[in-house]
Amino acid sequence: MPDNKAVVYQGPGKVEVQEVPYPGFELKDGPGVNPANVGRKVPHGAIIKAVATNICGSDQHMVRGRTTAPAGLTLGHEITGEVIETGPDVEFIKVGDLVSVPFNIACGRCRNCKEGKTGVCENVNPDRAGSAYGYVDMGGWVGGQAQYVLVPYADWNLLKFPDRDRAMEKILDLAMLSDIFPTGYHGCVSAGVTTGSTVYIAGAGPVGLAAGVSAFLLGAAVVIVGDLNKERLEQARSFGCETVDVSQGDPQDQIAQIVGEPEVDCGVDAVGFEARGHGAEAETERPATVLNSLMQLTRAGGALGIPGLYVTGDPGAADEAAKKGSLSIRLGLGWAKSHAFYTGQCPVMRYNRKLMMAILHDRVQIAKAVNATPIPLDRAPQGYEEFDRGAARKYVLDPHGLLAKAG
Amino acid sequence: MPDNKAVVYQGPGKVEVQEVPYPGFELKDGPGVNPANVGRKVPHGAIIKAVATNICGSDQHMVRGRTTAPAGLTLGHEITGEVIETGPDVEFIKVGDLVSVPFNIACGRCRNCKEGKTGVCENVNPDRAGSAYGYVDMGGWVGGQAQYVLVPYADWNLLKFPDRDRAMEKILDLAMLSDIFPTGYHGCVSAGVTTGSTVYIAGAGPVGLAAGVSAFLLGAAVVIVGDLNKERLEQARSFGCETVDVSQGDPQDQIAQIVGEPEVDCGVDAVGFEARGHGAEAETERPATVLNSLMQLTRAGGALGIPGLYVTGDPGAADEAAKKGSLSIRLGLGWAKSHAFYTGQCPVMRYNRKLMMAILHDRVQIAKAVNATPIPLDRAPQGYEEFDRGAARKYVLDPHGLLAKAG
Amino acid sequence: MPDNKAVVYQGPGKVEVQEVPYPGFELKDGPGVNPANVGRKVPHGAIIKAVATNICGSDQHMVRGRTTAPAGLTLGHEITGEVIETGPDVEFIKVGDLVSVPFNIACGRCRNCKEGKTGVCENVNPDRAGSAYGYVDMGGWVGGQAQYVLVPYADWNLLKFPDRDRAMEKILDLAMLSDIFPTGYHGCVSAGVTTGSTVYIAGAGPVGLAAGVSAFLLGAAVVIVGDLNKERLEQARSFGCETVDVSQGDPQDQIAQIVGEPEVDCGVDAVGFEARGHGAEAETERPATVLNSLMQLTRAGGALGIPGLYVTGDPGAADEAAKKGSLSIRLGLGWAKSHAFYTGQCPVMRYNRKLMMAILHDRVQIAKAVNATPIPLDRAPQGYEEFDRGAARKYVLDPHGLLAKAG
Amino acid sequence: MPDNKAVVYQGPGKVEVQEVPYPGFELKDGPGVNPANVGRKVPHGAIIKAVATNICGSDQHMVRGRTTAPAGLTLGHEITGEVIETGPDVEFIKVGDLVSVPFNIACGRCRNCKEGKTGVCENVNPDRAGSAYGYVDMGGWVGGQAQYVLVPYADWNLLKFPDRDRAMEKILDLAMLSDIFPTGYHGCVSAGVTTGSTVYIAGAGPVGLAAGVSAFLLGAAVVIVGDLNKERLEQARSFGCETVDVSQGDPQDQIAQIVGEPEVDCGVDAVGFEARGHGAEAETERPATVLNSLMQLTRAGGALGIPGLYVTGDPGAADEAAKKGSLSIRLGLGWAKSHAFYTGQCPVMRYNRKLMMAILHDRVQIAKAVNATPIPLDRAPQGYEEFDRGAARKYVLDPHGLLAKAG
Repeated sequence: MPDNKAVVYQGPGKVEVQEVPYPGFELKDGPGVNPANVGRKVPHGAIIKAVATNICGSDQHMVRGRTTAPAGLTLGHEITGEVIETGPDVEFIKVGDLVSVPFNIACGRCRNCKEGKTGVCENVNPDRAGSAYGYVDMGGWVGGQAQYVLVPYADWNLLKFPDRDRAMEKILDLAMLSDIFPTGYHGCVSAGVTTGSTVYIAGAGPVGLAAGVSAFLLGAAVVIVGDLNKERLEQARSFGCETVDVSQGDPQDQIAQIVGEPEVDCGVDAVGFEARGHGAEAETERPATVLNSLMQLTRAGGALGIPGLYVTGDPGAADEAAKKGSLSIRLGLGWAKSHAFYTGQCPVMRYNRKLMMAILHDRVQIAKAVNATPIPLDRAPQGYEEFDRGAARKYVLDPHGLLAKAG
Repeated sequence: MPDNKAVVYQGPGKVEVQEVPYPGFELKDGPGVNPANVGRKVPHGAIIKAVATNICGSDQHMVRGRTTAPAGLTLGHEITGEVIETGPDVEFIKVGDLVSVPFNIACGRCRNCKEGKTGVCENVNPDRAGSAYGYVDMGGWVGGQAQYVLVPYADWNLLKFPDRDRAMEKILDLAMLSDIFPTGYHGCVSAGVTTGSTVYIAGAGPVGLAAGVSAFLLGAAVVIVGDLNKERLEQARSFGCETVDVSQGDPQDQIAQIVGEPEVDCGVDAVGFEARGHGAEAETERPATVLNSLMQLTRAGGALGIPGLYVTGDPGAADEAAKKGSLSIRLGLGWAKSHAFYTGQCPVMRYNRKLMMAILHDRVQIAKAVNATPIPLDRAPQGYEEFDRGAARKYVLDPHGLLAKAG
Repeated sequence: MPDNKAVVYQGPGKVEVQEVPYPGFELKDGPGVNPANVGRKVPHGAIIKAVATNICGSDQHMVRGRTTAPAGLTLGHEITGEVIETGPDVEFIKVGDLVSVPFNIACGRCRNCKEGKTGVCENVNPDRAGSAYGYVDMGGWVGGQAQYVLVPYADWNLLKFPDRDRAMEKILDLAMLSDIFPTGYHGCVSAGVTTGSTVYIAGAGPVGLAAGVSAFLLGAAVVIVGDLNKERLEQARSFGCETVDVSQGDPQDQIAQIVGEPEVDCGVDAVGFEARGHGAEAETERPATVLNSLMQLTRAGGALGIPGLYVTGDPGAADEAAKKGSLSIRLGLGWAKSHAFYTGQCPVMRYNRKLMMAILHDRVQIAKAVNATPIPLDRAPQGYEEFDRGAARKYVLDPHGLLAKAG
Repeated sequence: MPDNKAVVYQGPGKVEVQEVPYPGFELKDGPGVNPANVGRKVPHGAIIKAVATNICGSDQHMVRGRTTAPAGLTLGHEITGEVIETGPDVEFIKVGDLVSVPFNIACGRCRNCKEGKTGVCENVNPDRAGSAYGYVDMGGWVGGQAQYVLVPYADWNLLKFPDRDRAMEKILDLAMLSDIFPTGYHGCVSAGVTTGSTVYIAGAGPVGLAAGVSAFLLGAAVVIVGDLNKERLEQARSFGCETVDVSQGDPQDQIAQIVGEPEVDCGVDAVGFEARGHGAEAETERPATVLNSLMQLTRAGGALGIPGLYVTGDPGAADEAAKKGSLSIRLGLGWAKSHAFYTGQCPVMRYNRKLMMAILHDRVQIAKAVNATPIPLDRAPQGYEEFDRGAARKYVLDPHGLLAKAG
């Protein structure tokens, strides 16, 4: 059995690359593994040799100590790789396939999966519906910022790239299919983005940028991205977005200058619960700012896509209400405008095949737009740190040096 | 010109039946009329002789002094009647037609109307999108708890009953088409109610009961209505609903006893911002209780229909945040369950023809379910008072004695 | 291993009950088995002891010799029963579960299954997309008009009834979930049937009657069923349908008398390719009559649901074009009315859970509506014969005498 | 009153530019005017000074003598222009507005209009649902290949360009909003084209090319256009389409070479009833060829958008069945693949605002893609002739020399 190095959470502010056990077709006990999942057999699983495995903004919530994640947790849920072994129940996925792994783990056999709601699968997480690799309170499936990782229900979960060589040529783009590209796209789709829409996206992190790319792919007329990080705003402008610097005040005024009216058709929240205020409050955490602002600047009859993460408990929150996940929301404003609000994990499987086709046929350059930056697995701690400081980059770990070779 | 008696708001807790001007094809100045609408020509309008005109729970918000409604406002937005005069631009609606008037006033010519979003028409209310008869901040269209009322854009807004005599036989049912039946139905549709659904409806007032009827009409398997008013719960049971008495504690436990699991497929908020707490807090106003409870008891992947009114400002609210329409919402809980939230006025026109067909062909008995109770126009003040005290009735004013005759 | 008796096709006009092999977890060679499927391993399968297994109108196409079905084919694709053995890959379905088997076999792992299109699964039939038990050109999965039958991909395909005893009380209703109830419902849904619709259903066989029940369940205002079999029309009237006797001439005139205009909102074709003419041509096969008639009597902007089977080849057809599955269709008529046409197998899984809930909670009496009639397995040949002569019955085979006991 | 020159149909193969009456706010008698429409008052109308008015392929059906169009009919239904007079009922459209006129005339007040089905408005054509300017059997609304034309229900029908000067800069693109751009887009939308789709479009005339542009705008991965006109195929390649020369044989083989499999996700019929055969039959009219071919080459579970016109009667058809609009269609093939078929006029209003936004914000170059070619009104006869001979051009008449000035 080969060695298996992985990125392991050590406590607030600290991750390390360590040797972890090589995966087998059974879920073993370990930090964060739900007792009810210990010993679970995975004959339907596949072992993946990670070719690319990305650092995600939602990993940062854990690493910043804003969750109850235990030390020792292997991180990582954005996995792309090669199938090197399959369990006895795997029928269609084959050893040697190059695949994308949706970050949501799903069984393909429950009511929600049958309805396409793979973000809230009922059979993989004993605590509640929905699961992911390497994430707190998600059942304990081992993370994939590693050389090797187990993927359960492989026939259901894995998306095979049709041509291996052609895929390796676009591997940095395809690596975005496991999470942020579908997540940004889902935010836009649920916000109603379509041909000719005007769109405001709060947040220019990787998901916000992916939402910007998605908005264009969906035919939007005007795509505006708001943030207070100038480097990230510059990145948004690099592929045609208009931008709003929220540290300069209320986004609505700046939007009015761009589109000629103070409202847009569609609002996307790509920030989530760690939001900061606007203008003078830009240095302060204001968890409801984004949603309240989106209600103000989205037109009556419009919708809000909310891919940004909101949590049920936030030990690091500024006030008691926020610690329980309660936010002071101006719902009356949204109600007066007949807004619809769409929350939750993106059900990646609903979109990843379509987006793969768009990538393979050169309709979209997602890696360039989010500034995908491969780094060796060993440099993961630096990647986490730079990302946390606001680098306008999407860090892609390269556990086997295959990205370096491909590039 | 005939006399025209109407129900007029006099200040907190007080309404009176008074003589008001007979309507003409122009919007005149008066209490609550937006200056920009004064003098507006209405050649596309029709004058309706009201046959039935209902008291609505949302009128109570004004009468209780929970809004900025000025004294002198003529109330009433649930109008059914006969066309007695049409403006020169009316082409298809004819004098003598018996019609239902959607409570939302819409122009039929703006982007939102063309998209079927008549609840947020852009051309009828100078303040913002969306309007209604006899309602504060809605542009100043005169209310229809009156003998006669002007309906603008008559060809667009009015729903004609195909057969006058057959319609008069079911006039109490048809009178529910102007607001509460479509509103309850919209709440269910947006919550995803369909064949076989389990549904929880918060609130057993007329909209909640109409939502219950609608849920059955949509094929729901189990319909549960929650309230703390025992008489209203009894009314809900009268047509097959299960009930939950929220004064007895958290609805989730009672739901578990009914459906065998602590969650339902679909949640409907038919209460809105004047919600009270559950259990021991049942006497206290807790504006976010309903929404937070619905997130808890609606299954992952489900949706919440929110026809209950939430306001942008509430001078009578218990705390500062609520005065601005801000509520402390556990959004993280909904996010974890991938909930969708649908708010806003029901676009009545989307549903009223279908529901009329169901009434005329005996598929539904809405008047009986909501306990529609005709009273003479002069008794409107008593109707308001009894309704405010929690009577399990839907009061229908009978300005010309035609309901008395029909019954 | 127990004995296993089954209904076997012997050639045009003839079926027999015979001993057949007890099923195992591998697909064996036999009449009609696609060579590419021989030897296929089925560790994901379950062996079902059939409690109820129905004769279907589409079986009749084979038995009448209108297909290339080989002698020796075990018939039957409408199966309800108890799980008595599961393969090693089955994780959630358990021995002892009482289940409904969707007639379409689906893998739960291909693109179409992931999109909910289980009627055109890509992995179960080597010839083309889509499969079924005991049917010609469907890959060779052994039919279930038998005591025991193998169901592949059991976790995906099987619908478990939540409570065994409660289910046995309604077993005849639940037996309709494997095909005709969802199929009739799908016809209505795709025709756009909703609250208040007027609906015309061509054909009063079991699928047509199930469509009638479904139309009511979906809230239709008026449901009209057309046929030339008086006994079946009587059956349709028994649960509230209006009827049209197409042997008396063009249905449009009769429809006009019923609904007051010569058109309905929604048209459903529950007849398919063995249609006969209207009026004087009622004795003659006229394969395009139903579709051409539906275009005439469905309103502009309406839709046609076409659950009735049309085939790619019909050796017994009256003319050369029909032998190749070509019909002379007045498409220009449909085009002028902007009709949409929905064809194909019903994807049963999309609907069966919802319809089960409606049955279990007493919202619908499907068995009574279609006159479900249990008969011993041994009497299957008589059942086929009586059904072919037009009996207004849905024959349900009772291979283990359990229906007799339950009734 | 100014002079008014217009293009008038003279009989098979012949059009002339003639002086016609200047329009007023009443529908006058004339060739092809339905008697029930004579004298109809149009106070809701606007008189448009045509800036651009295009020749359409569906005009050619009339000019070729394939319809019952009477001599003397003023042609033209693709109108873009300036409002120069409005009737007394027009409230929001103003004199001076630059507007696009949807080719379908709609009242904005009937059930179908309220449901967004403006292609089958019930109030504008006494013969049947649906109408258009200058078209046979469409009620008799005077055509707009003229200097001036009356548009009824102006507030409902007209799409105003937000900025006049900016609009004139893109006037050739915007001129495509009246018909072919929305029509091509509708074909794609109804065929299910979305991000990553593979699409086959039958026909490289202006609608086929507009469908190609639309497919890319909707995010398609691969867009293939088939025709036998080499110049038009070259035009399709100019903006990134793959092409199939159907004179070289069955398109399916060529498709397999392009996409690696013999099927596409989505099929669009941009040809209609005057289709020719494939391969050796390319010179012969084969009205069902396109549909039968699309069923073959569209994958199971896919859909067919059919914007190409099919007629209820075709006096010039090759055989008796086709004269009545009957085609020999292999419906069984589509049924086996669960295809859905969407027919009818595009409801332009559903799409034109969105597409206008995409044009104004430079997301699409439709004029270039369809090779929009302005010519003086007087040269209309040559335009008709060259278009009929297969020129790869979309001819845009310039009745006031404003396009020449703008270009």
